[in-house]
Amino acid sequence: MPTPTLKKAVVLLSGGLDSATVLSMALAQGFHCYCLSVNYGQRHSVELMAARLIAARLGAQEHRVMGVDLAAIGGSALTDLDVPVPESPGTGIPVTYVPARNTLFLALALGWAEVLGATDIFVGVNAVDFSGYPDCRPEFLSAFEYLAQLATKSGVEGARFQIHAPLLHLSKADIIRVGIARGVDFSQTISCYQADPGGRACGKCDSCRIRAAGFLNAGVADPTHYR
Amino acid sequence: MPTPTLKKAVVLLSGGLDSATVLSMALAQGFHCYCLSVNYGQRHSVELMAARLIAARLGAQEHRVMGVDLAAIGGSALTDLDVPVPESPGTGIPVTYVPARNTLFLALALGWAEVLGATDIFVGVNAVDFSGYPDCRPEFLSAFEYLAQLATKSGVEGARFQIHAPLLHLSKADIIRVGIARGVDFSQTISCYQADPGGRACGKCDSCRIRAAGFLNAGVADPTHYR
Repeated sequence: MPTPTLKKAVVLLSGGLDSATVLSMALAQGFHCYCLSVNYGQRHSVELMAARLIAARLGAQEHRVMGVDLAAIGGSALTDLDVPVPESPGTGIPVTYVPARNTLFLALALGWAEVLGATDIFVGVNAVDFSGYPDCRPEFLSAFEYLAQLATKSGVEGARFQIHAPLLHLSKADIIRVGIARGVDFSQTISCYQADPGGRACGKCDSCRIRAAGFLNAGVADPTHYR
Repeated sequence: MPTPTLKKAVVLLSGGLDSATVLSMALAQGFHCYCLSVNYGQRHSVELMAARLIAARLGAQEHRVMGVDLAAIGGSALTDLDVPVPESPGTGIPVTYVPARNTLFLALALGWAEVLGATDIFVGVNAVDFSGYPDCRPEFLSAFEYLAQLATKSGVEGARFQIHAPLLHLSKADIIRVGIARGVDFSQTISCYQADPGGRACGKCDSCRIRAAGFLNAGVADPTHYR
C-alpha cells in the first residue's frame, strides 16, 4: 500500500476511459481528488454525465463542470456540427483536433489548483495509442509545467507545480489493465466522439476504434454500449 | 507610414486603457484585428461593453466575447463578491490577482488564432505601472510563446506564433501618449475594478490610481467618468 500523501490534486476528467483510469491512479497515490470537466461545446457532451458518475463511484472529493464556449470559434469536428467525424483512419493530425484544447484545460485546472492550494494536476494524455494531437506530447506537458511556475502567484512564492500524465507511455491495453486493477467500471466511460444522448458509441470513429482494439489486446471483454 | 502587412491578428481586448492602446498599435502595423474579450465572471463586466465600442470605433474586423465561468472557482477579489477590492495600496501580489487568468486568455486567443490562420496575438500586459501580477512578466510571455508552438497543429506544421506585448516596457503615461496619437478615445475605456453598471469608476482601487497617475504624468486631462 502506498503511504497516503493527503495532498489535494486537480484531475482533468473527460468521462472517457483514459481520464477515469488516471483518477483511479491519483486516488491510489493517496491524493484527495478534485475533478474538473469542461463543457466546451463538444458534440459528445454526454461524456460529462459519465464523468459525474465516475467521480462519485471512485470517490473524488468534488466534481466541477466549467463551461467554455469553444464552439464559438469552431475549427474542429468535435465542436462544429458541419464538420463530420471521420469514420475511417486518415493520415496526419485529424479534424477532431480542437485548437489549443489541452492548453485551455490545463489553464483552467491550474487556476482551480491555485485556489485549492494544490500543486498537482493529473491529465490523461497518452502518446502511444492516440490520435496524433500535438498537445498530447511530453514536450508540450513539460512546457506547460514550466509555464505554470511563471504564471501563478503560488509559483512565484515557491510552490512547484507538477503535471502528472501517468498514461503517457502506456498502450491502450495497459491502461485498461491498470484501470481494472484500480476498480474502474469501463462500462460507465464514454470515449466515442459522436456518442448519442444515451451515451451509446458509434463504433466507427477514431476514438471508438482505438478503444475497441485496446480491449481486444488486453484480452478483456469490451463493455462499451454500442448503438 | 508602416507598410500594411494584411495579416490577421487576435487582439485580447478587455475594454481598459492598455488593451485599447494595443489594438490601435496593431491596426497601425496593418494587421486585420480580431478582438477577443472574455466574460469570466468579473465584477466589472461593464468593461465588455466598452470593449465592443472600442473595437467598432477603431476599426477591428470582428469582436467576440467568450464566456468562461472563473467565478465558479473564485480565489480573487475580481471574481468573488465576498472579497472586497482594496482601496489603498498594499504590498506583494494583490487579491485582485485572478489565478491563471492570462494563461487562460492566451489559450483562448491561441485557439481562435489557429482557426483564423493567424500567428500573431496581441496582449496589453505591462511590467512597469502594473499591479505585480506574475502573468504580466516578460518571462511568462516567452514561456507561452514557446508553449504555443508545441500545443498546436499549425505550430507542428511550421507556423511561428508570436505574442506581441508592445506595452511591456512603457510607463502608463507613455501608453496614454501612444494611444492618443493613434486615435484612442480614453473616455470610452474602463479600467476600474469596481466600475458601476454605468461604467463609472471608483477612483480608489489600484487600477484607478495607476490610471489617474498616468494621465497626470502625461499632462493629459483625465477623461475618466468617476462616480
